[in-house]
Amino acid sequence: MSKFSRNKFMMETQREENVDQIIEGLLKGDRMMLSRAITLIESQAGRHKKQAEEILQRIMTRSGNSIRIGISGVPGAGKSTLIESLGLHLCKQGYQVAVLAVDPSSAVHGGSILGDKTRMEQLSKHPNAFIRPSPSGGRLGGVHLRTRETIFICEAAGYNVILVETVGVGQSEVMVRDMVDFFMLLVLTGAGDELQGMKKGIMEFADAVIINKADGPNAEAAKKTQREYQQILQFLQPAANDWVRPALTCSALYGEGIEQIWKTVLEFEKTTKESGLFYNNRNIQAKAWLYTNIREKLETDFFSHEKIKNLIPDIEKKVLEEKMTVTKASKILFNAFYGK
Amino acid sequence: MSKFSRNKFMMETQREENVDQIIEGLLKGDRMMLSRAITLIESQAGRHKKQAEEILQRIMTRSGNSIRIGISGVPGAGKSTLIESLGLHLCKQGYQVAVLAVDPSSAVHGGSILGDKTRMEQLSKHPNAFIRPSPSGGRLGGVHLRTRETIFICEAAGYNVILVETVGVGQSEVMVRDMVDFFMLLVLTGAGDELQGMKKGIMEFADAVIINKADGPNAEAAKKTQREYQQILQFLQPAANDWVRPALTCSALYGEGIEQIWKTVLEFEKTTKESGLFYNNRNIQAKAWLYTNIREKLETDFFSHEKIKNLIPDIEKKVLEEKMTVTKASKILFNAFYGK
Repeated sequence: MSKFSRNKFMMETQREENVDQIIEGLLKGDRMMLSRAITLIESQAGRHKKQAEEILQRIMTRSGNSIRIGISGVPGAGKSTLIESLGLHLCKQGYQVAVLAVDPSSAVHGGSILGDKTRMEQLSKHPNAFIRPSPSGGRLGGVHLRTRETIFICEAAGYNVILVETVGVGQSEVMVRDMVDFFMLLVLTGAGDELQGMKKGIMEFADAVIINKADGPNAEAAKKTQREYQQILQFLQPAANDWVRPALTCSALYGEGIEQIWKTVLEFEKTTKESGLFYNNRNIQAKAWLYTNIREKLETDFFSHEKIKNLIPDIEKKVLEEKMTVTKASKILFNAFYGK
Repeated sequence: MSKFSRNKFMMETQREENVDQIIEGLLKGDRMMLSRAITLIESQAGRHKKQAEEILQRIMTRSGNSIRIGISGVPGAGKSTLIESLGLHLCKQGYQVAVLAVDPSSAVHGGSILGDKTRMEQLSKHPNAFIRPSPSGGRLGGVHLRTRETIFICEAAGYNVILVETVGVGQSEVMVRDMVDFFMLLVLTGAGDELQGMKKGIMEFADAVIINKADGPNAEAAKKTQREYQQILQFLQPAANDWVRPALTCSALYGEGIEQIWKTVLEFEKTTKESGLFYNNRNIQAKAWLYTNIREKLETDFFSHEKIKNLIPDIEKKVLEEKMTVTKASKILFNAFYGK
């Protein structure tokens, strides 16, 4: 065997061993292997993509056995405190809790990468918990796709409660909604925060609104806010839904109301599993995932095409100045794309 | 000249004459030619498409000089009565009023095609008005694109108020919003209708809510509904907007409140033209139009591809049953699409 082919052989073997090791490890719940698998999934390198794909393909039948919960809210609403509090509550009951974050652009609001572990100090030390810091940067769509795959990997590793945190910038909530079973919106008392939820249209798909920091002198105001949200949620109630969305108060810091939040999640799971909505939603999500993936690739292929990149600034200008119709602009671009 | 080439010559000449005639006619405000131009635009025949494209390209610099108003509301809210009332009010003041309809699927709610002219009996007889019945059937996206082009044609024909009516099925409102300057939502008193506006998320982009049928024994209830909407609109107020969206009452049937609606539109036009929002919106719309067009064509090309049509049922099934990852599914489909 030549030196070259021996090296190639060793590399191939090593690759195979790695994937096998990772899969074996993560199915046993080995966090190191779980972390490695997620790193491969998040990697942009072609070789890693292949390995990630192989892992995913092989663990797929082992995933799905969890309740996936999305948690959203404006910065300062107390998302990490709630996750710490709820996560510990669940870990103590024997649940395996994985915490993931969809952070559309970490550069915008620094801190979350620095501090995921320190933010959730107690939870991060609990043997039943696995906290994955936010992926750094990257396109929103990409992060979204990777987070969905990360959920599958965590489930295969035995985690049966997945908490997906997202920082409220609108688009990311829509993406998280499309990968979770239950979506909660964390708010504070005071009109400013209420407006935020409403404006972004997040309220429309929240399965529950949680008014946090309902403690001390704030308790009274929180009750009032709760009533306001109950009214708004009534307005927004979807027709084809057997779930009446509640507004709850809690104090994540003092652990008050956490039990009630979890009861609400279980009630939701029970109701929607009985009605079939739970499974139906997961099917819709899987389908949407496929088509989103296709659309994104189509657009990426098109707009990153050399000829299109060269043509588009001038064509866009002409369309805006009403010197060219959209039909003509489109024709020129597609002729270039298909190499006509 | 052979018989063949003479025929060909005559056909070519006729085609040229037609387009020239149509353009000349419609720029003079000839309704017959305007109707013919719109028919060409709505036609799916390849030859018509070419003519339509030529007309559009040549009249483009003459379009844009109007206020484009979208009117939405549940069936029965009184949209046609309002359009008749508002349209006549404007025609009498010397405005040229064109009425278009975006009817996503005429089959679903019969009647609008039958009755556009009879629904607006007086307006349809006024020399300053042009009413174009709803396009019959067709894909939602297609209708949307044609309606936008129809607006341009009407503007080139001298119409300076364009009323675009849409029947509330959610998606069509979003499309109409993307082609008008001012969007009004017509509602009735009573919780049922209020809910409808909220549920579909239409409230979020309404520039005004009009509570219709505020007459007789209904007048009191309408005032109450008005106050409720004012409150909701306050909740939904967008941050980056200098326009405070009002809730108005009117009786389209008795012509009450129509003057106030028009004053509101003019006030909106003045405010947003001064702030630049008006022109900015039109630019955003033109850009969105281009990119929507590109995306639609990309998806149509992909999903109508023979190989994709054959592959997708099985692949979708495998993804739903979690037997295949989305990445792998996507790879198989794209290899087929690009002929690899």
